[in-house]
Amino acid sequence: MADHSTCPPLTRQSVQAAHKRIEPYIHRTPVAQTPPANPLLTAPRQITPPSPPTTAKPTVRLFFKSENQQKIGAFKARGAFHALGRLIEENGIDSVRARGVVTHSSGNHAQALAFAAKTFAVPAHIVMPTISTPSKIAGTKSHGAEVVFSGSTSEEREKVTQGIIDRTGATLIPPYDHPDIILGAGTQALELEEQAMEILSTSASMAGNSSGGQKKQKKGLDAVIAPIGGGGMLSGICTALHGTGIRVFGAEPSFEGANDAERGLASGQRIAHVKTLTIADGLRTPVGEIPWSIISDKDKLAGIYSVNEEQIKAAMRLALERMKVFIEPSAAVGLAVMLYHEGFRRMVEKEGGEEGWNVGVVLSGGNTTMEAIGKLFAKSERVEERAQGTVGRDGAKVAENVPG
Amino acid sequence: MADHSTCPPLTRQSVQAAHKRIEPYIHRTPVAQTPPANPLLTAPRQITPPSPPTTAKPTVRLFFKSENQQKIGAFKARGAFHALGRLIEENGIDSVRARGVVTHSSGNHAQALAFAAKTFAVPAHIVMPTISTPSKIAGTKSHGAEVVFSGSTSEEREKVTQGIIDRTGATLIPPYDHPDIILGAGTQALELEEQAMEILSTSASMAGNSSGGQKKQKKGLDAVIAPIGGGGMLSGICTALHGTGIRVFGAEPSFEGANDAERGLASGQRIAHVKTLTIADGLRTPVGEIPWSIISDKDKLAGIYSVNEEQIKAAMRLALERMKVFIEPSAAVGLAVMLYHEGFRRMVEKEGGEEGWNVGVVLSGGNTTMEAIGKLFAKSERVEERAQGTVGRDGAKVAENVPG
Repeated sequence: MADHSTCPPLTRQSVQAAHKRIEPYIHRTPVAQTPPANPLLTAPRQITPPSPPTTAKPTVRLFFKSENQQKIGAFKARGAFHALGRLIEENGIDSVRARGVVTHSSGNHAQALAFAAKTFAVPAHIVMPTISTPSKIAGTKSHGAEVVFSGSTSEEREKVTQGIIDRTGATLIPPYDHPDIILGAGTQALELEEQAMEILSTSASMAGNSSGGQKKQKKGLDAVIAPIGGGGMLSGICTALHGTGIRVFGAEPSFEGANDAERGLASGQRIAHVKTLTIADGLRTPVGEIPWSIISDKDKLAGIYSVNEEQIKAAMRLALERMKVFIEPSAAVGLAVMLYHEGFRRMVEKEGGEEGWNVGVVLSGGNTTMEAIGKLFAKSERVEERAQGTVGRDGAKVAENVPG
Repeated sequence: MADHSTCPPLTRQSVQAAHKRIEPYIHRTPVAQTPPANPLLTAPRQITPPSPPTTAKPTVRLFFKSENQQKIGAFKARGAFHALGRLIEENGIDSVRARGVVTHSSGNHAQALAFAAKTFAVPAHIVMPTISTPSKIAGTKSHGAEVVFSGSTSEEREKVTQGIIDRTGATLIPPYDHPDIILGAGTQALELEEQAMEILSTSASMAGNSSGGQKKQKKGLDAVIAPIGGGGMLSGICTALHGTGIRVFGAEPSFEGANDAERGLASGQRIAHVKTLTIADGLRTPVGEIPWSIISDKDKLAGIYSVNEEQIKAAMRLALERMKVFIEPSAAVGLAVMLYHEGFRRMVEKEGGEEGWNVGVVLSGGNTTMEAIGKLFAKSERVEERAQGTVGRDGAKVAENVPG
């Protein structure tokens, strides 16, 4: 991995440069503005309130960035390609091939690095806990990486990782706490900004044509909301959109203190240790140091909101059953805040006013399994039933709130 | 419903007219040619064979018609809007509003008719078995339809339906066995044909540019494969594509004799009664009389192939976990034939030769629930494990067969 001292500065321009670098290797993932059969998500005032009597009714138009359709099924491909590309630029392909790369991850970053490394014929060593699910191990191996097992504590995996570095000279590519990863992850925000503007311009010009008159140019996004775990993605998005006037919000699970970033911002200090088993398993890590330095800047991040497990499940259900898009629980957290967090919704209602906000919602990945879904939605049927009234589980309760 | 005697003839031109009529009310659903992170589905020779030593290796490029993203989540919206539109044209909106419409269905047709009727402010009565799942009842009610309960035998529901007709004068809109439904359902094939051609032309011109020379115009689709239950959709597609040179194939579940159309074609006689609990619950009905008259014409339908429950589940898993598209089991049957039916694959290998075939695969709907998925994939874990080697359950087995 490129040395921090030689990394580009954490600016929008650097994200733009990162985007140019990785464009040939990644998908420009689609943005869905109008999930079919689902006006409640996009049309103003049609989102079901969490508790009918006191609820906010923000006017929003949502733009879903489908990173579940990114290579390897998650946004992590962006950071991996960028970090590896920069490493090759600095050290030369021969040196990188001779030494290889290494990381420790049981999640999407493992597959992303394995895939990027394969693309450049660079050997990759991935340290995974012995208890990782067989499908993730197999997925990583399928990209040609060497999987090395470790215990599941961070000490154990770091020891194994160091052993690989000592033996092979491999360069460590960490999952989120590095400028090159952050800049790569932020590239999706540039695309989302552009794609939303294209969609809005098209619909504005169509509206202009049909009314026969001149309409004022439609504005672009007002805000973007994205999940935060280690913070590589959220801080990348903050960096990409800094200075554009688009507000960036983080979305976090609250279960067992998983909302370390929210709590850290409240106390003014980064929380370095978290132990949670939230269903949003990509967001269990505490926010890293470099991401923290970005998201704790009020000019860059407008706020973090957290949601509980039922809200995450309800949002995931809505994405799959109604929008027909397949996402993992971590990817549903931004949507959950948009739909169910009363504080966030009140703020949007107030700030957006009558015209409302155009909100980009990042669907960060889609790597889950049929079995995992089965377990998730079988486990707490009674909780689900309680949530049904607010959630529109079967389309009825929601649809009753949709006029026309 | 418009009287048969006044219906347009079952020709490609009538499907084109139907398309013009319903276009304002339906989605032109997207066609996915290259599912991200999933080259095995689209690139030639990269589909995992069902049994390695003897298997066919057809060269195919697949074009997925995403009717799971159609209004109400399934292609049924097409037939419902067409049938209702024709009825209004024949009898006048006032008469149709005064009398209303009625159907018996516990599936997608119920919601489709309820939705179309709501659009034109026509009262709709939907007869559903008392044992229908609450979500489907609620979904139908949410579109403003009156749900009337009946027993689950066909005699019981027909009696209730007739009672409604006697009482209100409502017109029956059957789910598939009517020309207007068939013509409406066939409209998706016109879109698919066009969309595939657009995609192929774009990629051909890009290839032409990059090689700097002239390339011959790329051909369009060679074949389309679509599920068959009552046969409204398949016969509509046959009608739409008749005379174009595009071959149309049907895909059917084989469980408990659900492959009535395949067996009927083999014996030369329509099978009118089937009793099956295949997981492809939209395909449990026997093929209707009018659909039969079309699909039994060898000039219109090139053949029917059937797959077992494990193959359907494997295809559904692949669609969700790898392609990230949310479909119901019935919608996975065409993909299952493409991936796992050795006879079909041998035929494509032989007919397509080295150049291979461009195959349109209809993903007919996406109306299922988290709970249904949980039950489906928890039920027979051992069968799944056995299927894993051929199916690429976790990406590993499949990916090993994908070069580069």
